[in-house]
Amino acid sequence: MSGHKYAIGLDYGTESGRAVLVDVTDGQEVATAVHPYGDGVIDAVLPSTSIELPPDFALQNPADYIEVLRVTIPAVLREGGVDPGNVIGLGTDFTACTMLPIDERGTPLCQKPEWQDNPYAWVKIWKHHAAQPEANRLNEVADGRGEGWLSRYGGKISSEWLFPKIWETLNNAPAVYEAADRFIEAADWIVHQLTGQERRNSCTAGYKAIWSKREGYPSDDFFAALDPRLGDVIDEKLSRQIYPLGQRAGDLTPEMAELTGLRPGTAVAIGNVDAHVSVPAATVVEPGRMVIIMGTSNCHMVLGTEEHRVPGMCGVVEDGIIPGLHGYEAGQSCVGDHFAWFVKNCVPADVHDEAKARGVGLHQLLEEKAARQKPGEHGLVALDWWNGNRSVLVDVHLTGLLVGATLATQPEDIYRALIEATAYGTRVIVETFEENGVAVNEIVACGGLPERNQLLMHIYADVTGREIKVAASKQTPALGSALFGAVAAGKAAGGYDTIFEAARHMGRLKEIVYRPTPAHKVVYDQLYAEYINLHDYFGRGENDVMKRLKALRQKALG
Amino acid sequence: MSGHKYAIGLDYGTESGRAVLVDVTDGQEVATAVHPYGDGVIDAVLPSTSIELPPDFALQNPADYIEVLRVTIPAVLREGGVDPGNVIGLGTDFTACTMLPIDERGTPLCQKPEWQDNPYAWVKIWKHHAAQPEANRLNEVADGRGEGWLSRYGGKISSEWLFPKIWETLNNAPAVYEAADRFIEAADWIVHQLTGQERRNSCTAGYKAIWSKREGYPSDDFFAALDPRLGDVIDEKLSRQIYPLGQRAGDLTPEMAELTGLRPGTAVAIGNVDAHVSVPAATVVEPGRMVIIMGTSNCHMVLGTEEHRVPGMCGVVEDGIIPGLHGYEAGQSCVGDHFAWFVKNCVPADVHDEAKARGVGLHQLLEEKAARQKPGEHGLVALDWWNGNRSVLVDVHLTGLLVGATLATQPEDIYRALIEATAYGTRVIVETFEENGVAVNEIVACGGLPERNQLLMHIYADVTGREIKVAASKQTPALGSALFGAVAAGKAAGGYDTIFEAARHMGRLKEIVYRPTPAHKVVYDQLYAEYINLHDYFGRGENDVMKRLKALRQKALG
Repeated sequence: MSGHKYAIGLDYGTESGRAVLVDVTDGQEVATAVHPYGDGVIDAVLPSTSIELPPDFALQNPADYIEVLRVTIPAVLREGGVDPGNVIGLGTDFTACTMLPIDERGTPLCQKPEWQDNPYAWVKIWKHHAAQPEANRLNEVADGRGEGWLSRYGGKISSEWLFPKIWETLNNAPAVYEAADRFIEAADWIVHQLTGQERRNSCTAGYKAIWSKREGYPSDDFFAALDPRLGDVIDEKLSRQIYPLGQRAGDLTPEMAELTGLRPGTAVAIGNVDAHVSVPAATVVEPGRMVIIMGTSNCHMVLGTEEHRVPGMCGVVEDGIIPGLHGYEAGQSCVGDHFAWFVKNCVPADVHDEAKARGVGLHQLLEEKAARQKPGEHGLVALDWWNGNRSVLVDVHLTGLLVGATLATQPEDIYRALIEATAYGTRVIVETFEENGVAVNEIVACGGLPERNQLLMHIYADVTGREIKVAASKQTPALGSALFGAVAAGKAAGGYDTIFEAARHMGRLKEIVYRPTPAHKVVYDQLYAEYINLHDYFGRGENDVMKRLKALRQKALG
Repeated sequence: MSGHKYAIGLDYGTESGRAVLVDVTDGQEVATAVHPYGDGVIDAVLPSTSIELPPDFALQNPADYIEVLRVTIPAVLREGGVDPGNVIGLGTDFTACTMLPIDERGTPLCQKPEWQDNPYAWVKIWKHHAAQPEANRLNEVADGRGEGWLSRYGGKISSEWLFPKIWETLNNAPAVYEAADRFIEAADWIVHQLTGQERRNSCTAGYKAIWSKREGYPSDDFFAALDPRLGDVIDEKLSRQIYPLGQRAGDLTPEMAELTGLRPGTAVAIGNVDAHVSVPAATVVEPGRMVIIMGTSNCHMVLGTEEHRVPGMCGVVEDGIIPGLHGYEAGQSCVGDHFAWFVKNCVPADVHDEAKARGVGLHQLLEEKAARQKPGEHGLVALDWWNGNRSVLVDVHLTGLLVGATLATQPEDIYRALIEATAYGTRVIVETFEENGVAVNEIVACGGLPERNQLLMHIYADVTGREIKVAASKQTPALGSALFGAVAAGKAAGGYDTIFEAARHMGRLKEIVYRPTPAHKVVYDQLYAEYINLHDYFGRGENDVMKRLKALRQKALG
């Protein structure tokens, strides 16, 4: 093994960080270590204080990110029995938009005594939802001004993204805004920590900060129209210098080498985002193959050679996934969450008893029962909008629907109908991409669900009419980061010069291929037509009952 | 008590028969006895044979009806400590259409050795559903001929009714048809047994045998068009002599007096049906007040002074409920069944655990939780069609719908939405009656549900905007039969000359009145508008998704 070279991928998730030591030759994952964040997701009380947080807050402690380095990298070196001299590169990915205010030296404001008691000085993570008023106003102004970039994001900027979060800080903690030398994505901050270099990446800039390679950020005029104090936000608090993925951000500093046990000077890649970094790890570096990360929600990514404006997509970003290509992202807001809701709220005691008696999980038992059915047998169609619709309708106020229930309807019938509904939702996305010039010939799945639910994979293949392959790795984000680490190191050091080469050697698929069954496809085409009928009727304004019910609910709740 | 006079009401249900001894003065129920049918509902194997029944069969043994007399009447006399000489009258009610073939002496064919092994010689009860092909054909022919009586029955004759059942026997057991001197409703057969007189009643004739006081039966031509062998079915196998409710059928025979312990000559009323006989027991003998029997399904009855054709009603029959008035009947096919389905299939383990820990039933716990909500708070609307729609849409192929679900939706939310859906369904019926000239100013509820579910009663009052009173008796059919028994006896014997007087003295309501809460009514008007929107969209052909899903299901099931 002494001739082998290795890269390390570091994946910063919501609850923990993970390091994976990967053989550069063939992508074999040699060792893995996970370290939970000491302060976890901070949504109630600021650590070491009694300061209660407002609703919808979700913060993290950046010290936890450093702790992940200190613990996990030595652990994988040890577990893998690998000489640090053979680790040629390090890549990182992060949740996004996960952002923080820093001083001129890159120190988080929350680590400075004068700011540590201010919640706005901490890291706001992706699911911090307190900036909704700012997002609403931003969309209103952008829409009013006819900002051209709006359609790159399906017509709507999310409250989870960078500018609403910055503006929220300005509105609620102007002193923090004032004291911040810069705001930065955690994805870029960790690279800054590792290398001493600030190298803002094109993925978070493009998908979360309304930046594009050709047009840059929205105009200063636009920001001034939002709030005169934001007129110079880009130049004062951010940077116009954005680096494409696949580059080397810099070398590991001596301090970080000491902390991690790696050699000083080890190549460190430009930062990345957990979803997008998975794409090359799933072997996808070319147009025509869609990667779907299936978990609590679905994230769909596909590449193109030019920019199309596709209804409902979350964003199209040049260099956003693979350098030199346009990365398209779309999403479904409720997939695993959907099944979890069902299992928590709708599974009767006798199914619990059966699962217990047989020593299987509820999901597994329901899947087994549902798998015995033929398509169409349960007589149900559902709209998968339990958590709104973030695909072509882009409407959080839509809600779930189930039609076709009878006194003979069983729990597994509804369970299967919910799986199918998410498959129909994915087909809407696939077809919308294709109608708008972005080919989707094949699907590669990764994430937790494909591992756990074979029925779901068969249904997705039957409903979309496409072959579905599955990424071999259970930790595609970390593997993807290792790919970019190998590219940062370059061929001369034993790595690769491009992500295309790295993906060819290090990305891997499972042997199993889920192929559409023609007879099922015929039935699902009919059911999909029913889904689309209902989708358009309830989603495009013909009957806004869902919104009126939500309004009545809000009123009843006072 | 020696001066008091008594009447006995005999209620023949699906599983058992019940006698109630009632004080004629004030309707007090002095004693009750129930006796389950020895052979119960016969739906698998003919008693004392190994003869297996075809699907959808539901038979009974008429000997069980006699056994009910033998056991229950002595029991109530004993329990009440009442001298048989003070029992002035006897009334009976039955499920319907529950029918049997008899010989010229009234003996059921199934009690004759030569026929006892033939399932068609037995009693077919109301839920015998094997005559669906005959019902379909009957409706087709009636529709094609433009038969005017069809609209008296909401445009459709049920497979549960008399002529489909007779025709089914002719088609499948022509020898039984041939051997039968007559077919008779069990309601009339039991009166025949008690009195020796055949006195066919206007209620079953009107609601189940397409008879009307003014037009009689459908023409012989019509029956000949169905099947040449049926051309003389009325004169050969039935009778054109129909007696209005409220008359005396005859006197108790000496044989029956000996069997029951009553005096020979005791007055016996014309037979009746369990639902309709409840109306005067619920104090309703005049137009404008609707009786709803709430149980597994809802049965709605209201009186009028003239005949209107109301869409979706099950029937309008002069003398059908109260002599001299037109009795209107409508129904919802899924009410208690709806909640039972939900509790069986959709209530999660933690609700089971909570109910167990607190020692309450699941329904009670869900009702408690749901009762804490304000109208509209759960954000849901359902269509109550889990078992089709038998109201204004008269369509068994419609299915259930739920809209508005989110990841925050709880089991009690859905439970409440289902209750509300049945209330909306009742409001459709109420408003359809009113739009067609049949007033519904007030509602009187009886049956099992009003006893058990106060939330349901409040919701019905709020949704319909009408006061709801509740019949005091838990056994309104038996009490109603006792009323008719007292009328059969007449005033001279210590009873009453009319059902109007009997109802005034013997019918009773509870003190509680459920009144609409104006603030709730406002919200429910909005929700009802949503229900109607969906009702018409899915029920009137704009989107026949429910039927297409059912067809796909049938196909999948092969």
